[in-house]
Amino acid sequence: MKTRPKQECIRIYSCVVHWESSTVCLCLRRQSHPAEQFKMTSESADGNCLAWAASDPSGLLSPYKFSRRALGSDDVSLNITHCGVCYADVVCTRNKFGDSKYPLVPGHEIAGIVKEVGSNVRRFKVGDHVGVGTYVNSCRDCEYCNDGLEVHCVRGAVFTFNGVDVDGTVTKGGYSSHIVVHERYCFKIPDNYPLASAAPLLCAGITVYTPMMRHKMNQPGKSLGVIGLGGLGHLAVKFGNAFGLRVTVFSTSISKKEEALNLLGADKFVVSSDEQQMMALSKSLDFIIDTASGDHPFDPYLSLLKTAGVLVLVGGPSEVKFSPGNILMGMRTVSGSATGGTKDLQEMLDFCAAHGIHPEIEVIPIQYANEALERLLNKDVKYRFLIDIENSLK
Amino acid sequence: MKTRPKQECIRIYSCVVHWESSTVCLCLRRQSHPAEQFKMTSESADGNCLAWAASDPSGLLSPYKFSRRALGSDDVSLNITHCGVCYADVVCTRNKFGDSKYPLVPGHEIAGIVKEVGSNVRRFKVGDHVGVGTYVNSCRDCEYCNDGLEVHCVRGAVFTFNGVDVDGTVTKGGYSSHIVVHERYCFKIPDNYPLASAAPLLCAGITVYTPMMRHKMNQPGKSLGVIGLGGLGHLAVKFGNAFGLRVTVFSTSISKKEEALNLLGADKFVVSSDEQQMMALSKSLDFIIDTASGDHPFDPYLSLLKTAGVLVLVGGPSEVKFSPGNILMGMRTVSGSATGGTKDLQEMLDFCAAHGIHPEIEVIPIQYANEALERLLNKDVKYRFLIDIENSLK
Repeated sequence: MKTRPKQECIRIYSCVVHWESSTVCLCLRRQSHPAEQFKMTSESADGNCLAWAASDPSGLLSPYKFSRRALGSDDVSLNITHCGVCYADVVCTRNKFGDSKYPLVPGHEIAGIVKEVGSNVRRFKVGDHVGVGTYVNSCRDCEYCNDGLEVHCVRGAVFTFNGVDVDGTVTKGGYSSHIVVHERYCFKIPDNYPLASAAPLLCAGITVYTPMMRHKMNQPGKSLGVIGLGGLGHLAVKFGNAFGLRVTVFSTSISKKEEALNLLGADKFVVSSDEQQMMALSKSLDFIIDTASGDHPFDPYLSLLKTAGVLVLVGGPSEVKFSPGNILMGMRTVSGSATGGTKDLQEMLDFCAAHGIHPEIEVIPIQYANEALERLLNKDVKYRFLIDIENSLK
Repeated sequence: MKTRPKQECIRIYSCVVHWESSTVCLCLRRQSHPAEQFKMTSESADGNCLAWAASDPSGLLSPYKFSRRALGSDDVSLNITHCGVCYADVVCTRNKFGDSKYPLVPGHEIAGIVKEVGSNVRRFKVGDHVGVGTYVNSCRDCEYCNDGLEVHCVRGAVFTFNGVDVDGTVTKGGYSSHIVVHERYCFKIPDNYPLASAAPLLCAGITVYTPMMRHKMNQPGKSLGVIGLGGLGHLAVKFGNAFGLRVTVFSTSISKKEEALNLLGADKFVVSSDEQQMMALSKSLDFIIDTASGDHPFDPYLSLLKTAGVLVLVGGPSEVKFSPGNILMGMRTVSGSATGGTKDLQEMLDFCAAHGIHPEIEVIPIQYANEALERLLNKDVKYRFLIDIENSLK
């Protein structure tokens, strides 16, 4: 087994390439160094894992077979029942960052049922409902790993697909029949909570939950603005409701108004181009979560924040630009966030089960995956595609 | 007495005019509504207050006499001994924001000795050493006033000069022989602390102290970057030392290196244009205070922050622009701050006395004020001009 050189083989994309104008899981924004050596997971006609994979930058997915690693003593093996479809899947299968390693099996919103556990595993047993999110390994030894913030591991977290694991193999994601992971990166899905609901939480959910908790947005009676109403935004609204916040949704299109208010339970809906509506909200919000995928001005939103208000960016515009006066006056804050640590992940799943928070999903068979990715590109989904792996991947 | 219309007569400059490319006290960034009526402080040849004032946008200061208000029951009257020279004095005397009310007496870093107190005043007595900062009134009734954050008063704080007080008079600053203020906006200068050192703290000091405390930069062993080494920056270095931080100074010019290290006690000095030095500090800083007055890129500095690192902006570039990846990865924060509340102000003065923190000053007579403002414009000062009012204003 080959050990990947540490740290120096990691390069963050965000500083060196134009920022993709869409909401992309930040967990993808790491690439292997050109000089880095890695090996493909063993592939053969009699591989132990069924999957759908892209074989080139066309991104077209088709059936594929490979072998998952043998169960280690700290590992959990799960049969995947569901996998959410994230914009990251589009980005990687189409080689948008130039580092895709084909054949590429996408998917990092994984829910399933434990089929086997290693001899040291105590947290899980066969039959448990579990989830796997955007990363499957980290050094487990640095200050961030020790603090349950493995996604910030100083040696770099190993992402669930298209990542290079410590043994040099390329990770393969959840558009597949089963996965083997160290138990640390596996989360218990509460018994009363549907596996189908859990899957999208593992990326879309945690991406908004983590900054909401970090910035203390769980104070009842406070006010929250949510910019953008897609996979991330609709979950921010649901968390906001559960936290007892007064939630205002900002969207470029009036077409989402009825669903925002009646389906998702927002208190207010504002078309962001309506200057009068925006002006009326001046200095009225404690928090804003910005999930918008495209470029947009920041000043109009910052001016809506109260003194000491916080705007958290989780979307992916090409740049952030604003007048300094809009943060100097009123000591406002702009903060970023991407996914979350294992501690938050388990806490979020438990919270969603306790409060009946369920993502809005459109369930599809694996055979519809190519159409789903195309529709996702066109923002034609309410609000998350979910692949029914269990019943369609045969 | 006329009551000023509340709230609606206040407009924040920062959103409507080009941001001045210099470090300007944000306390100036409010103007009266064109329709607002105000009256000048009574002026006459036998006025009770000597001062130097600008009479038009040339900004040229010359001797001037006017009458301060009679002492109210909650007021403190003090003989001014020293007044610091702030860039705000340049901006206002030269009508850079278009709202200057002449004759204009600048100065909001005021130190002096109490000569009289109103019947209700309990915190001060005749002979006390006291300071007055950038504001002299607020509603004293809103959530921010109640929280000791009067500068964020929802009805707008009344600034120390060129402000319109609740009685309609235009406030006049510290380039004058005495001032009368409500005791709430007056601060005790500890007995063992020089009046000359206290004055610059009332604006330059509090502008860096408040965000340092708010963002918990007082944790020994953490690392702080200070961008820019002027009136604000040099005090940030001194506070950083007192808090037990490891301080790195970033400057565009190598010429400041020796003073930064030997006079101010910074641990490291980096010329910001030196890419190699900057790269070497990647992800190494917990905090950055950005006091730079001119436009500069933000990405190179943001990339120096550790996970969860914070950059606080207190300077005045014309815009803030950066790549979202630099805050999304590592959940970094950019936050603004301007001056501070009365609670912080008193705490800071006590802290400086207890820890022997003294601003670096160049003491001048009032007759040198015009040259000082000119030199300030040319950044030719180390690090704060201080007018010796007591011995030169006769």
